[in-house]
Amino acid sequence: MAEREALYTRRIFYYETDNMGIVHHSNYIRIMEEARMDYMRSLGYEYTEMEAKGIIMPVTSVSAKYITPLRFDDTIHVRTRLTAFNGVRASFSYTIYREGDEKPCATGESGHCFLDTDTRVPVNLKRKYPEFYERAVKIQEKE
Amino acid sequence: MAEREALYTRRIFYYETDNMGIVHHSNYIRIMEEARMDYMRSLGYEYTEMEAKGIIMPVTSVSAKYITPLRFDDTIHVRTRLTAFNGVRASFSYTIYREGDEKPCATGESGHCFLDTDTRVPVNLKRKYPEFYERAVKIQEKE
Amino acid sequence: MAEREALYTRRIFYYETDNMGIVHHSNYIRIMEEARMDYMRSLGYEYTEMEAKGIIMPVTSVSAKYITPLRFDDTIHVRTRLTAFNGVRASFSYTIYREGDEKPCATGESGHCFLDTDTRVPVNLKRKYPEFYERAVKIQEKE
Amino acid sequence: MAEREALYTRRIFYYETDNMGIVHHSNYIRIMEEARMDYMRSLGYEYTEMEAKGIIMPVTSVSAKYITPLRFDDTIHVRTRLTAFNGVRASFSYTIYREGDEKPCATGESGHCFLDTDTRVPVNLKRKYPEFYERAVKIQEKE
Repeated sequence: MAEREALYTRRIFYYETDNMGIVHHSNYIRIMEEARMDYMRSLGYEYTEMEAKGIIMPVTSVSAKYITPLRFDDTIHVRTRLTAFNGVRASFSYTIYREGDEKPCATGESGHCFLDTDTRVPVNLKRKYPEFYERAVKIQEKE
Repeated sequence: MAEREALYTRRIFYYETDNMGIVHHSNYIRIMEEARMDYMRSLGYEYTEMEAKGIIMPVTSVSAKYITPLRFDDTIHVRTRLTAFNGVRASFSYTIYREGDEKPCATGESGHCFLDTDTRVPVNLKRKYPEFYERAVKIQEKE
Repeated sequence: MAEREALYTRRIFYYETDNMGIVHHSNYIRIMEEARMDYMRSLGYEYTEMEAKGIIMPVTSVSAKYITPLRFDDTIHVRTRLTAFNGVRASFSYTIYREGDEKPCATGESGHCFLDTDTRVPVNLKRKYPEFYERAVKIQEKE
Repeated sequence: MAEREALYTRRIFYYETDNMGIVHHSNYIRIMEEARMDYMRSLGYEYTEMEAKGIIMPVTSVSAKYITPLRFDDTIHVRTRLTAFNGVRASFSYTIYREGDEKPCATGESGHCFLDTDTRVPVNLKRKYPEFYERAVKIQEKE
C-alpha cells in the first residue's frame, strides 16, 4: 500500500489562476505530472534515471474531471497510483484534494508509452530497464 | 456544416516545447481553449460577451489523445465542434492537424457548465442568455 | 537579517523545460513570484490577506539575468529581499541558486505598485494597510 | 525600415490571464519570444534553420515594463527591433500595443548569445552562419 500510493503536496501559485479567480484547468494536467514524477521518485526510480538510460515516457492520453475549483494559495495533496503497467505502456490515476476537504476537488488519469530517446521507437522496459520493470509490475499487480 | 465546424490555425511557440523536443501535453489543453473561443467567435458569440452578461463557462472535464508529436514552428489547424448543449451543460470536441498531415495528431474533448459569475450558482442559458441558447441548440441539433 | 532574507526551495518541473533541454527563461519570472509570495508569508503577511483587504500588488517591471541554465529535477533555492518600499511602490530582488552550486544561476528584480482591487486606483499602504506598512518599512530600512 | 521593424499580431488567450483579471506578467516574456521568432522569420531566417545548423540562441537577460494591463481577447501588436548584434551576442527590443491605443501598454528587451547545440560552447555566427551574420549586421547597423 505504502508503495502504491504517494501524497504529493504543494501550494497553488498565483500564476496558475485565471480570469475566473480559479486555477486554470490546464494546470491540473501539469500538477498531475509533478505528482507522477514525485511518485516515481518515492518508488526509488527517478525519471531522470530513465532519460539517462535513453528512454522517454511521453503521454499518450490524459483526462481530468474538475469537481470544486482551486484558488491561489490553497494547499493541495495529490494521491497517485500506477493503475496499469506491462513494460510497454503504463497508466496512472490521480486524486487531488484541497487541504481540509474530505472529498477530492479533481481526479485524473494519464496513459504513457516508452520510447527510445534517439529513434523514438517503442521499447519494452522488460528488456531495456529490468530493474524498473520488476518493481513496477509488482506494484501494479498488488492492486 | 459551416456553422458547426471551424478551423483555428496558428504556429507552435517555442515555449510550448519541452525537454523531449516536442510540445508539452498540457499545452494541447490550452490550444483546445483557444480553438473553442475562436469557434464561439465564428458563431457570432464572443466569450467576452458571455462574461459581460455575468456568466462564466468553466471546464468540468477534459480529455486528450496524443497521436503524433508536435514540434516548434509546426503550423496546426484545429477543428472544433459543439457536440452537446442543453442550456445547462455543453460539450466540445477538437481534432488537431499538423499542416501537411492527413491524419490528426491529437484529438480532445471538453465539458462545461454555465455559472453566475458572482454567486457561482449554475444558470440555464435558455433564460439567462436566450440568443446564445437558440443558436447553440440549432448548431448542436443539426449534427 | 532573518527577516530580510528568505530561502524558497523546490525542484524544477518537467513542464518548465523547453526544446533546448533547459528551463524556459519565462519560468524564472514565475519562480520569482513564488519566492516573493513565500517571502511575504515568512514576514507574517500572506498575499491573500492583502487581496482580502481589497488591495492588489501588480508587477510594474521585471528583469532577469541568466547565468547558468537549470534543468529538470534540479533543486533550486531562491533568496528574496525587499530592496525598496515606501507604501506606494515596492521592489524585490531575487538570487536563484542551484543546489550544490556556490554561484547563483540567475538573478532578478521586480517592481510593484499597490492598487485598490475595485477601482484600480493607486493606494498608499501607510493608510490602507498600516500593519503591513510598518513591518515593510522596518525590513527595508534595516538594509 | 521595413526590414528593421515588424509587427506581430495576435489576440490574448484566456489562459494568459490571472486572478487580477489581467494578463500575467510572465506571459509578456513569452509574447516577446513569439514576436522575436516572427521577426526573424520576416527577415528570411527562421529560428528552426538556426537550430538545424546546430546553433541555439538562449536568452541571457530579459526585462519588461508594464504600463497598462492587457485583458482576455485584447488584440496586441508587437514591434520588434534588433538593437545590437556582433555575431556573438544579440539584443532585441519590443514595444507592445493594444489595438486602438496610441501609447504602448508594455516595453521589453532581451539579450542573447549563440551556442553550439551539442557542446554548449559560444559560437561566432560570422564563421558558423555567415548568411545570417551579414544580414543581421546590416539591419542592426542601419539604426
